[in-house]
Amino acid sequence: MYAIQLVEPSLSSFRRTSLPDPEPGPGDVLIRLRAAALNYIDVAVATGSFPGATLPMVPVADGAGEVVALGAGATNVARGDRVIPHFMPGWLDGPMRPERIAAMRGITLPGSLSEYVVVPARSVVRLPDHLDFAQGATLPIAATTAWNAVRSASVRPGSTVVILGTGGVSLFALQFAKASGATVILVSSSDAKLERGRALGADHLVNYRARPDWDTAVLALTNGRGADLVVETVGDATFERSLHAAAMGGTVFTVGFLSGAATSINLFSIIGKALRVVGNSTGSVADLAEAVRAIEANGIVPVVDRTFGIDEAAAAYATVAGGTHVGKVAIAH
Amino acid sequence: MYAIQLVEPSLSSFRRTSLPDPEPGPGDVLIRLRAAALNYIDVAVATGSFPGATLPMVPVADGAGEVVALGAGATNVARGDRVIPHFMPGWLDGPMRPERIAAMRGITLPGSLSEYVVVPARSVVRLPDHLDFAQGATLPIAATTAWNAVRSASVRPGSTVVILGTGGVSLFALQFAKASGATVILVSSSDAKLERGRALGADHLVNYRARPDWDTAVLALTNGRGADLVVETVGDATFERSLHAAAMGGTVFTVGFLSGAATSINLFSIIGKALRVVGNSTGSVADLAEAVRAIEANGIVPVVDRTFGIDEAAAAYATVAGGTHVGKVAIAH
Amino acid sequence: MYAIQLVEPSLSSFRRTSLPDPEPGPGDVLIRLRAAALNYIDVAVATGSFPGATLPMVPVADGAGEVVALGAGATNVARGDRVIPHFMPGWLDGPMRPERIAAMRGITLPGSLSEYVVVPARSVVRLPDHLDFAQGATLPIAATTAWNAVRSASVRPGSTVVILGTGGVSLFALQFAKASGATVILVSSSDAKLERGRALGADHLVNYRARPDWDTAVLALTNGRGADLVVETVGDATFERSLHAAAMGGTVFTVGFLSGAATSINLFSIIGKALRVVGNSTGSVADLAEAVRAIEANGIVPVVDRTFGIDEAAAAYATVAGGTHVGKVAIAH
Amino acid sequence: MYAIQLVEPSLSSFRRTSLPDPEPGPGDVLIRLRAAALNYIDVAVATGSFPGATLPMVPVADGAGEVVALGAGATNVARGDRVIPHFMPGWLDGPMRPERIAAMRGITLPGSLSEYVVVPARSVVRLPDHLDFAQGATLPIAATTAWNAVRSASVRPGSTVVILGTGGVSLFALQFAKASGATVILVSSSDAKLERGRALGADHLVNYRARPDWDTAVLALTNGRGADLVVETVGDATFERSLHAAAMGGTVFTVGFLSGAATSINLFSIIGKALRVVGNSTGSVADLAEAVRAIEANGIVPVVDRTFGIDEAAAAYATVAGGTHVGKVAIAH
Repeated sequence: MYAIQLVEPSLSSFRRTSLPDPEPGPGDVLIRLRAAALNYIDVAVATGSFPGATLPMVPVADGAGEVVALGAGATNVARGDRVIPHFMPGWLDGPMRPERIAAMRGITLPGSLSEYVVVPARSVVRLPDHLDFAQGATLPIAATTAWNAVRSASVRPGSTVVILGTGGVSLFALQFAKASGATVILVSSSDAKLERGRALGADHLVNYRARPDWDTAVLALTNGRGADLVVETVGDATFERSLHAAAMGGTVFTVGFLSGAATSINLFSIIGKALRVVGNSTGSVADLAEAVRAIEANGIVPVVDRTFGIDEAAAAYATVAGGTHVGKVAIAH
Repeated sequence: MYAIQLVEPSLSSFRRTSLPDPEPGPGDVLIRLRAAALNYIDVAVATGSFPGATLPMVPVADGAGEVVALGAGATNVARGDRVIPHFMPGWLDGPMRPERIAAMRGITLPGSLSEYVVVPARSVVRLPDHLDFAQGATLPIAATTAWNAVRSASVRPGSTVVILGTGGVSLFALQFAKASGATVILVSSSDAKLERGRALGADHLVNYRARPDWDTAVLALTNGRGADLVVETVGDATFERSLHAAAMGGTVFTVGFLSGAATSINLFSIIGKALRVVGNSTGSVADLAEAVRAIEANGIVPVVDRTFGIDEAAAAYATVAGGTHVGKVAIAH
Repeated sequence: MYAIQLVEPSLSSFRRTSLPDPEPGPGDVLIRLRAAALNYIDVAVATGSFPGATLPMVPVADGAGEVVALGAGATNVARGDRVIPHFMPGWLDGPMRPERIAAMRGITLPGSLSEYVVVPARSVVRLPDHLDFAQGATLPIAATTAWNAVRSASVRPGSTVVILGTGGVSLFALQFAKASGATVILVSSSDAKLERGRALGADHLVNYRARPDWDTAVLALTNGRGADLVVETVGDATFERSLHAAAMGGTVFTVGFLSGAATSINLFSIIGKALRVVGNSTGSVADLAEAVRAIEANGIVPVVDRTFGIDEAAAAYATVAGGTHVGKVAIAH
Repeated sequence: MYAIQLVEPSLSSFRRTSLPDPEPGPGDVLIRLRAAALNYIDVAVATGSFPGATLPMVPVADGAGEVVALGAGATNVARGDRVIPHFMPGWLDGPMRPERIAAMRGITLPGSLSEYVVVPARSVVRLPDHLDFAQGATLPIAATTAWNAVRSASVRPGSTVVILGTGGVSLFALQFAKASGATVILVSSSDAKLERGRALGADHLVNYRARPDWDTAVLALTNGRGADLVVETVGDATFERSLHAAAMGGTVFTVGFLSGAATSINLFSIIGKALRVVGNSTGSVADLAEAVRAIEANGIVPVVDRTFGIDEAAAAYATVAGGTHVGKVAIAH
């Protein structure tokens, strides 16, 4: 089969090669991959800042494709099914445990830039009919994380949710929050990106270049109450303001640290308002399946900024590293 | 002030009279009532089958009006505010407790068919701008119950909810379930009522006269999975089918027993599918406030079948007792 | 290897035979079984009233033994580990799902009355040091169910728990409730059995032969409040009283129906007190692991009424069918 | 009545004086106070670092006494009842809300260093028989906070809880955790204090002077797993180690900041292990009532380090400010 390998720790050291076709063992499924989608973790793996990968290897955690063969005992899917293999195939359900997250596609296991891949049949989720492969490939990491963000605060009709930025997790969180009946306040540096958010249902738009005190803007928009949930995708540059923007008893769901993971906080902000700061990195196959069910029932369409070809991996990675995209960046093949 | 009193246990023994104007004590609020809305409990009180009332009395649990005076220390509302006094003013927040539900408007306390009423200021909730008084009067019992139904099963985008009938609780549950991103299956005896439900967002309609095995129809519509939540408003005539229509791990929220409270069940249905049967009768002021917040954020408009005049109480009660209405029956004054 | 097979649907048709030694496949573990423990489901399987088994077969769902070999990739246990294979090896974590409970040891899979068994390595839990094999064998069904009973009502210090009877689930529930700081009211027909319960920590004893209105006794013992949790192991004969004994907002955990599964209830009991009726049949490997962790940390010792030899299966089954035992009945080999 | 007033912002400016006897209004209760107990917030109020008090005023948030008179409509207690008035009488139940915590005894309302006090009858909780007034006075702030700590992580039999220090909240958390069946690791700077903890049931003792890397000691004691709950009462000096000591999916309950509220954290600790950091400052009357129910059912006795006389307020405050005490410091009168 064809495959794109990462050969050196670099954002541009990709090579097309040929590898033996994998074969499904008992309980496995063989997938003809059709698309991959990038996350920051792929960039971190490629630059060597996220540990665990042994080069050369087939990169990219997230993908989607079609079932072409089944191992013995694999009965939950059928040949021809369009499916999404989960990023962490060992985490089927229940809480995160070290042994469940040891195996990660695109890091310790082969990723999505190849013609075929073998994964446990129980680790795949069926792709909804209204999504193409590139859209489906965006779901495992970003949609699952966003789904858990919205669940972490029991977002319901009438809840207020603050979304920081317009990356993949942020836009899925926006879409899930709106599908849940919440009021969404979107915070971004760009009016153009904010308008993209408005089209997805954002109720209030705050440009933090115009309003560096966006947290105070959130309080004003909520009659001083603050937000029930802040989806904190940024890290050091925004964390203290996220605590300030949260309502008494509210949740700050912390999932990103692009601006830096080391941050200073005043514990009194957390204690005095009885806040909950909830950390997360993705979720289980069951979480992905729930997110997909929500996407299907509500006709949610993932935002794909741009889809590259299989031989344009370096350009795709550069786009994600550059950070100017909205939503997700995909690679179709 | 003017008032309509129930003078004898009967659906037609109402008399217009004049009573002294009430005055707000410390922490109280004086409301100029503008509307009332009926529930089956009002019918049961009028016929003497629900205990606790001492005749003659001003009936009707639910109402809405305008704040005209405040007692000392009442600061959470202001003169001129349009408000909804909660049915059980002693249940402010937290779980149901005997002492919290002892006092009920329209039963042990004066109800809503009078010019004025005095209630604790903490027991009122502000009426959203997009609702008129008659619409607001429908909320305390029916919307709070429906809100708790939807919360009891953590209804989320992608959940499946079965609604039985088109009474007040049923339609609010339909509206809250749709606002929560759920797929709704509405079951009713009348195609006309089903079409009303479709206009409110119901995804699937099942006429149980055409499909007496509506539970099997629910399983078919859910690929054999069953519903995450069944809002069981009927009682004996449907209970066993409701258990059958629920998914493994699902919730049957039981709130009504018009067809009879005594029922036969097979415990194996509950044990084998790990069901939860959750009973409820309304909720706290905090629950009502949450429901109202959801209504406001999502522009939900209560379904008022018909609004009677203050001197038409007997006709209004007869309509509710007859059971042909859809949604709620109100009395404006 | 040696094995005891059930050859016909009967409580006495067991035969000792020799079967090929099983071999562990990838991800599997080979266990030298040392004990089995009986549940009512084993009796129902033997009499043919529980479907799914194809005779002849090695019966008994629950067992314990020692790891003697590992299949490829099985890393969570080691040779020599004393372990408990879970009853439903396909239900690792998360909620009950049809596909997770399809495979059951002693029914659709080989059970515990043989020298060796092969199961998925992820489906076994390590046996605490303070328990012998017979004690360990009692855990999968009964302790997991009891653990979920206590968790279903968030039993905490100060909670009140009513336990019906002194069978396996009942006594584990008693022990878990006491370890959780709850006050326990034990209801049984026999003073001797009640004294066994007292030795395990039961705070109040009610003999329902002396007090057929044991529900009223529960209300009296709780100052009229009722119990936060009733562990309902009996079914028709007690169900209505269990609803009556529960506190407002309380939980009736229904798990047994020895006295009959068909029962009549008054829905008003459930609605008026906002009760939760929660059905259950056992739980996942993760639930078993949590129960075992609780047992280990608190030095809980399962109550084994009597341990039979491997050639005394018929006598062991007769004891369980007779129902005079307290706690569990085991078979050592 | 006699009263001790704080006249200036200082730990020694107390004066004995005579004030008019208060009288209970509708819904109120008049209490003959018999004891007070100190918290750090009292020290902060006395030194002027906690805002809200207008001097001169009767200080000390927590107290206990006897009901001597009831206002109209106060029916939940009776004359002669031994009771604990809650610190925040406006927070009866449900989550923290700004309007519920505005009124605080010993800050914006009269505190506990006087002969009598009037509070809302609904804001008092009955004192268990096995506690004297000084012990009862220790409960509102410290026991309620500790109760919420243990509940925040759903501590159950088999959970592992790390307790930092031996102050009031810490020791109540230790006692509640043990009553819940948890394994407790106590961390303190003093072997003598650690032995006090052992007497209360602590399973493992870590002296952080001997083991400055106490977080690593916690991991070693839990086979690398970490703690399900860390009760973080210290702040800056320990926070990062608390995150490190927590298990994947664990909870760090942050309630104190004696060593400083400004702290630096690495968000990756929270994200990578999916931690929950939960802030808290006390709880509602309902939370206090639950804590008291747990104390009563389990015979828990609060640890009172020393009880001062009513004219020894300055010495009592100095003791708390000095920080050498174990558990609580009381004042009887």
